[in-house]
Amino acid sequence: MSLSFSLEAMDGTARAGMLRTAHGDIPTPVFMPVGTAATVKGMTKEMIAATGAPIILANTYHLMLRPGAERVEKLGGLHTLMQWPKPILTDSGGFQVMSLGDLRTITEEGVTFRSHLDGSAHALTPERAMDIQHKLDATITMVLDECTPYPATHAEAQSSMERSMRWAARSKEAFVTRAGYGLFGIQQGSMYPDLREASTRALLDIGFDGYAIGGLAVGEGQEVMFGVLDTAVPPLPADRPRYLMGVGKPSDLVGAVARGVDMFDCVIPTRSGRFARAYVPGGELNLRNACHADDPRPLQEDSDCPASQYSRAYLHHLVKSNEMLGAMLLTWHNVHYYQSLMRGMRQAIMSGTFADFAASFAEQQAKGPA
Amino acid sequence: MSLSFSLEAMDGTARAGMLRTAHGDIPTPVFMPVGTAATVKGMTKEMIAATGAPIILANTYHLMLRPGAERVEKLGGLHTLMQWPKPILTDSGGFQVMSLGDLRTITEEGVTFRSHLDGSAHALTPERAMDIQHKLDATITMVLDECTPYPATHAEAQSSMERSMRWAARSKEAFVTRAGYGLFGIQQGSMYPDLREASTRALLDIGFDGYAIGGLAVGEGQEVMFGVLDTAVPPLPADRPRYLMGVGKPSDLVGAVARGVDMFDCVIPTRSGRFARAYVPGGELNLRNACHADDPRPLQEDSDCPASQYSRAYLHHLVKSNEMLGAMLLTWHNVHYYQSLMRGMRQAIMSGTFADFAASFAEQQAKGPA
Repeated sequence: MSLSFSLEAMDGTARAGMLRTAHGDIPTPVFMPVGTAATVKGMTKEMIAATGAPIILANTYHLMLRPGAERVEKLGGLHTLMQWPKPILTDSGGFQVMSLGDLRTITEEGVTFRSHLDGSAHALTPERAMDIQHKLDATITMVLDECTPYPATHAEAQSSMERSMRWAARSKEAFVTRAGYGLFGIQQGSMYPDLREASTRALLDIGFDGYAIGGLAVGEGQEVMFGVLDTAVPPLPADRPRYLMGVGKPSDLVGAVARGVDMFDCVIPTRSGRFARAYVPGGELNLRNACHADDPRPLQEDSDCPASQYSRAYLHHLVKSNEMLGAMLLTWHNVHYYQSLMRGMRQAIMSGTFADFAASFAEQQAKGPA
Repeated sequence: MSLSFSLEAMDGTARAGMLRTAHGDIPTPVFMPVGTAATVKGMTKEMIAATGAPIILANTYHLMLRPGAERVEKLGGLHTLMQWPKPILTDSGGFQVMSLGDLRTITEEGVTFRSHLDGSAHALTPERAMDIQHKLDATITMVLDECTPYPATHAEAQSSMERSMRWAARSKEAFVTRAGYGLFGIQQGSMYPDLREASTRALLDIGFDGYAIGGLAVGEGQEVMFGVLDTAVPPLPADRPRYLMGVGKPSDLVGAVARGVDMFDCVIPTRSGRFARAYVPGGELNLRNACHADDPRPLQEDSDCPASQYSRAYLHHLVKSNEMLGAMLLTWHNVHYYQSLMRGMRQAIMSGTFADFAASFAEQQAKGPA
């Protein structure tokens, strides 16, 4: 294996680990802020670093179209371009091709599509996805897969999963092994336990540095998702990191960590920040609401994020005035809240108090935000 | 006088001084970044502080309409609201009432107008302008004046200036003196030397902590403006700070400092940053231009601003992708460039080399940006 991963503690099925990469160590469980176009929207690298995020994610689909993989390579790769020396995980581009690309056609070879930016024609194969992510200098590369649409019949889900497994094998074949860099496989199979199991067997036969759970957070709801995790996670190898793609809200993260997941990514904290929403203990606040106009209380008093210390009244004013600083501060706060939540879970796992942590989190959520 | 000002050096007519206020010391010459709606657009307070800006400006007109002076007062004033403990200068609101307010009517009493936000009716008198700026907790308060439109006949300019002088006297009367807080008068008189002189005499009769030069940067051009400064500045008292309002481009600042001006404010560095423009030694770059797409060079290598260290290719990518980070980084860089220019001028004045500094600046401008 090119990436070292060590389990440091288990508490029930919840895990605390350490993933060591060429670009630095990643304590798990970890949440990766999304830097779609080689920028975590509205955040400088100083703000990201201040949240303690040890790794960020970037989107292959967006970057292959603009500025282009070859250009990023010539400019020294993503770490140099963004001046972010720490780990970067890139998705394979498959998900965005399906959701954003026009006139997409999937064949055994790969997927062809037109850019949502300028209509230009592009092809993404497992081999090209590896090539692009190599050029981007991704610390962690994801295999090309098809994120099976939801809902799907068993036959549709099986056929889609099986093609994804053939693409996974080709991805592994094309991936250039380098010390401290890794390749993750992606489990598919929609909501069907037998397909998830078959997918896991196929991935284990190929062998990866880590295992992602794909095809969730596609509208199935938290209960269904947790049900899938209950059967989909345990067969994954204990000595490798497990990554639940595209998840989620704070309560999703707590429930998934409880079920043995180590890594997450989601646009929720950044997107919510741009839409005036703040995650605080107990839930969400909409800073656009007039009730905040005269509220001198800090957004979150017990947070050590500079953005959390501004009064709700000021944040409301910035949002109402369409000032960039409103989106900047709320994004910063949210990403910090997520990192803080992950640190809290890790600490609880290390000290064997995760059940208490989860119970106290649920209790606070039931009460709502202060 | 409530504000202490000491001249530390003169080099020709260029001055280096120190203005001491209740919220901190301001080395001059100084450029004040504009924080219109209680936020320097696109900058956190950490970014502003990193540029070394010792004071910022906020707009009375914008703040009286939203969030409202009384609300800001209840929330502890602007310093608390913005978490900016350093000095803040507020304009009087007069300029924006003229340029943004609808259905404005000027009488001897003051000006009535409708808000550009919601059409609500408002009045601004010298007394109300003092009251609002007091409630905002401005370190430096500006008298209410009428920024005479340009061009104006001698008779129009005289009548407008004379009313502004009567408003200046009423402003002084209404201003609440506090240690470390100050009130500045504003010289008017359009481009007419005799009116500028009469205005100065009127202001000196009233007596202020500092003297601003208003009614310039209204479309007259640099040559005309410098011509006005040549006669308008010398009669101002040597022991008080001189503030040229709404100016300007880097070459305006160098020329005005040479003519004895100490303080400036302008939206240029921040607005330019939002429109993809960067000030660098020698001139301006438009990062939207395709010529930057593959340029690995940092925006400005010899700058110690973190934003200046990103490659031009990355900044071009951010701008083309309409990413907030593009505007954030270019704004940060520009404000830093301006602060750095002011520091350079101050240092040159202190060491008696201002003429060399100005000549070298002009030479670089003639060459254009690298």
